[in-house]
Amino acid sequence: MKAEILAALRETDGYVSGQELCERFGVSRTAVWKAINQLKKDGYEIEAVNNRGYHIVSSPDVLSANEITSLRKTKWVGSQVYYYDVIDSTNTQANHLAEEGAVHGALVVADRQEAGKGRRGRAWESPANIGIFMTLLLKPEIEIANASMLTLVAALAVTKGIERLTGEKPAIKWPNDIVLNGKKICGILTELSMQIDYINHIIIGIGINVHNKNFPDEIAAMASSILLETGKKIKRAELIEAIWEEFETYYDLFIQTQDLSLLSEEYNRYLANMDKPVRVLDPKQPFEGSARGITDRGELLVETEHGVEKVSSGEVSVRGIYGYV
Amino acid sequence: MKAEILAALRETDGYVSGQELCERFGVSRTAVWKAINQLKKDGYEIEAVNNRGYHIVSSPDVLSANEITSLRKTKWVGSQVYYYDVIDSTNTQANHLAEEGAVHGALVVADRQEAGKGRRGRAWESPANIGIFMTLLLKPEIEIANASMLTLVAALAVTKGIERLTGEKPAIKWPNDIVLNGKKICGILTELSMQIDYINHIIIGIGINVHNKNFPDEIAAMASSILLETGKKIKRAELIEAIWEEFETYYDLFIQTQDLSLLSEEYNRYLANMDKPVRVLDPKQPFEGSARGITDRGELLVETEHGVEKVSSGEVSVRGIYGYV
Repeated sequence: MKAEILAALRETDGYVSGQELCERFGVSRTAVWKAINQLKKDGYEIEAVNNRGYHIVSSPDVLSANEITSLRKTKWVGSQVYYYDVIDSTNTQANHLAEEGAVHGALVVADRQEAGKGRRGRAWESPANIGIFMTLLLKPEIEIANASMLTLVAALAVTKGIERLTGEKPAIKWPNDIVLNGKKICGILTELSMQIDYINHIIIGIGINVHNKNFPDEIAAMASSILLETGKKIKRAELIEAIWEEFETYYDLFIQTQDLSLLSEEYNRYLANMDKPVRVLDPKQPFEGSARGITDRGELLVETEHGVEKVSSGEVSVRGIYGYV
Repeated sequence: MKAEILAALRETDGYVSGQELCERFGVSRTAVWKAINQLKKDGYEIEAVNNRGYHIVSSPDVLSANEITSLRKTKWVGSQVYYYDVIDSTNTQANHLAEEGAVHGALVVADRQEAGKGRRGRAWESPANIGIFMTLLLKPEIEIANASMLTLVAALAVTKGIERLTGEKPAIKWPNDIVLNGKKICGILTELSMQIDYINHIIIGIGINVHNKNFPDEIAAMASSILLETGKKIKRAELIEAIWEEFETYYDLFIQTQDLSLLSEEYNRYLANMDKPVRVLDPKQPFEGSARGITDRGELLVETEHGVEKVSSGEVSVRGIYGYV
């Protein structure tokens, strides 16, 4: 009920009468009054004016199923929302939910993770109240070989979402880190559950440093937050909404062609490494060159004196020669 | 305690004195006596002779952690055994346990599955008391591209295990169905949990029809059991032990080369399709030919009038032209 009332209040800049809410949701005036009071307790500023009704003045920066659902404008992402104040890891939880029948588009969000997962078994710092930790469950009918490109699709969506909310232009460190002023503010961990020739499901985990003011020493040099880099205190639920709205658009384009041919130009506009010197950490033979954008399959083109190499994200990592990017 | 006492009784063809068991396990005579009585209740026939001690006459066909552990001779497979009288699916459970920290070599066994998984989302019939449903958890340091070969390694181990216990020679329908007299008695469902460039874990699920006397109509034509095809009532826990003992040997050979070069000859000896006419159900262009064995990467060689084609298990399926095999 709270989510529906919130959504109704947000539909208009004006007032919504209690009577209207009663009729719309088929509940008593007392029930509406109780829900409004609960919302106030949750930190929403709601004005009540005699003979006019209710008006939402401001929302707190809370993550809750109600907040996320009431802001939702996506078509299928978030058709199921699983919200947790604290969870071990949204990726782990998404895997469990997938096996228990959660649908394509189910979204797992947590305010805090106790065992947040980074790439290759590393941890992801996930303190309460200041970050976004969320995982999208996909059950797509795509070839296994195309699955890794979804990470780049998600990177683009996060980048655009942050740009929309802050007005600042983040960059993508290929393949899927998001940076502001050269410092990492978001990581994406895509995991596949597959049979030999069949995708069970894919989960895309996204961790974003939103309001962090400091970081553990080990990562302080390369990590930052949206607040630190832009000075803006955005609302996390709004960023979540923006990201998935962008994602749906990009995902459609990806599914149409089963590759990034309709997205690579856009991706390259945000590519932090573009035309910059990079070192490709190929375990057999590391080499240096200039990044020249991605191919339609998401590989990074690196120009060396011997020609242009295609670098796959699965095989090697790429580092800027002058710093992280 | 029961597992240890069982194992001790099985070490010898003669008698083990109660005193010896007390000393060995540091428990009282009453404790030994209680454990022996419980084992008798579980269906073990144990003789007690004055002044000589205990002697195991016969074991029931039970699956239990005790039975499996007491028979265990493997080095690392089954270092953790998770046994369930009934579970949704041993693969699903193995995935959960993997995320919760279960180790490389952990073995999940159930007497019955309520939602047994077959390939491509199909169900696997898993009634109580007559089948083996088990899943091995691996956390190997191998390339993703090599992971699919593990299914063939497992197929070989199951084949050899059944041969050892029954004296009959099963065949492998490439890549990983086990058949007796052309009828399927075992299916293997390998699943990977991976990041874009990193294997979290691999699970190998094995379902074996052991004592089944009949099958649902839909599968009756192609499915059978060890009992129906060989007339032998083997003990399931002994087959489990035999399979994993074989598996450890083959797995070592696989890990040495990271391919099947040390195993393909052995595999081809059991290949049901060998030199038989097969139809390759390539979605682009189905074709027919004669199966000529597997390559060192586990592909099936199919000789056609235009030459020899390599068929990957991930892409197509292969059917015998005259029946299932």
